[in-house]
Amino acid sequence: MAPRNFKLTIEYDGTDFHGWQVQPQARTVQGEIIKVAKELSRGEVRVVGAGRTDAGVHAVGQVASVTLETGLKDEVLLRAFNAKLPEDIHVRELKEVPLGFNARFDARSRTYHYLILRRKTALWRDRFYQVPFELDVHAMRKALWELVGEKDFSAFASSEEVSRNRRCYIMRADLIDTPPLLTFAITADHFLHKMVRTIAGTLVEIGRGRELDMAEVVASGDRTLAGPTLPPHALYLVRVDY
Amino acid sequence: MAPRNFKLTIEYDGTDFHGWQVQPQARTVQGEIIKVAKELSRGEVRVVGAGRTDAGVHAVGQVASVTLETGLKDEVLLRAFNAKLPEDIHVRELKEVPLGFNARFDARSRTYHYLILRRKTALWRDRFYQVPFELDVHAMRKALWELVGEKDFSAFASSEEVSRNRRCYIMRADLIDTPPLLTFAITADHFLHKMVRTIAGTLVEIGRGRELDMAEVVASGDRTLAGPTLPPHALYLVRVDY
Repeated sequence: MAPRNFKLTIEYDGTDFHGWQVQPQARTVQGEIIKVAKELSRGEVRVVGAGRTDAGVHAVGQVASVTLETGLKDEVLLRAFNAKLPEDIHVRELKEVPLGFNARFDARSRTYHYLILRRKTALWRDRFYQVPFELDVHAMRKALWELVGEKDFSAFASSEEVSRNRRCYIMRADLIDTPPLLTFAITADHFLHKMVRTIAGTLVEIGRGRELDMAEVVASGDRTLAGPTLPPHALYLVRVDY
Repeated sequence: MAPRNFKLTIEYDGTDFHGWQVQPQARTVQGEIIKVAKELSRGEVRVVGAGRTDAGVHAVGQVASVTLETGLKDEVLLRAFNAKLPEDIHVRELKEVPLGFNARFDARSRTYHYLILRRKTALWRDRFYQVPFELDVHAMRKALWELVGEKDFSAFASSEEVSRNRRCYIMRADLIDTPPLLTFAITADHFLHKMVRTIAGTLVEIGRGRELDMAEVVASGDRTLAGPTLPPHALYLVRVDY
């Protein structure tokens, strides 16, 4: 039987995963999907994700290319995946794509949202970052303009970032202001390790009134000039475009 | 020192509580608040809640009257409560009220929301009730009209309901339709045990196309004619009016 390739759009609750990428001895999203793909395939399987989300990071629209050997139709395969996957992973869409399609290398952009709640909350503390003080949204927006374009973002990369090329092309960076919620939305061709959370941390510092020139931070390439890396539980991979 | 009385507006994540009401050997919201009130008082304390939410039910606007002996100002007492309470309880407001104020007996109405998500979800499964099929919102709205007014709601009460008087005055019952979210909002002078969740279960049955005459179900007083009691994790006590 010949292998077939499928594009899956996936939602998951990152809380109980050690991130996307498969690891021995750890529960990961990719690991769970590989397990189910093996049950559904008569031969080898291959699972490639568009974004390697960290431990605790959620996804509404992660995309994976899944290669397996099956005779099932798209709708039946979708139901089979959802019946076998744990309840913290849900495949929203599945369709067959050419064998050459690779969810990671063919992706043109990834969009993340970082959700900030401008009040203390008991109920939503696992899903939002709580900021119990005023934020200067205008100053934060001005700082965001300095990010758009193709630049070296070393200043926001963690020391664990392995790629030598630190240039990313940020296509869009915006704040959606719906009190008490403030959504930081960012789209780029790719991101460095912990980059979105460190930009979010820098933005919150600026929103609190810290004098920080975003253009200078970027130009410096110096991680110590940027703000703190915010926690993962408020970060969502929302879409991947091809 | 003379006792003083305070009105607290409280948010909590019901997931890890055995409901509001204090019980020996079980973690309850009232129990946690009593514990902190005792730390903050030089004498006896008394904590009365407006709504005795079940295990797993959340609150955005529970109200409690808390009587204690303290010399602290409102703002200082509010900060002290929040500093000492666990992170799944948050006091949103606190103000001193006359000693005679009783959060339970003085309440004129309670408003609950039941949150229905009309799709499968991995990410929000702990906070919404998932309905992965079409719902006839028009038919559900028509059924809701039959509930408004003062009636005997025995048909929706659990067998554990202890009060002899099963009459409640429903002031408002509505559906707020913001796809994929559907919010069932209901306000009454008081509710019987599991009443909101059983009305929600009956509504979903009607939305799925079951031929069920809400007026007849109410008139029958027969619990077996109503729909199932939906799970607690999608129910929120949103406000209490005085």
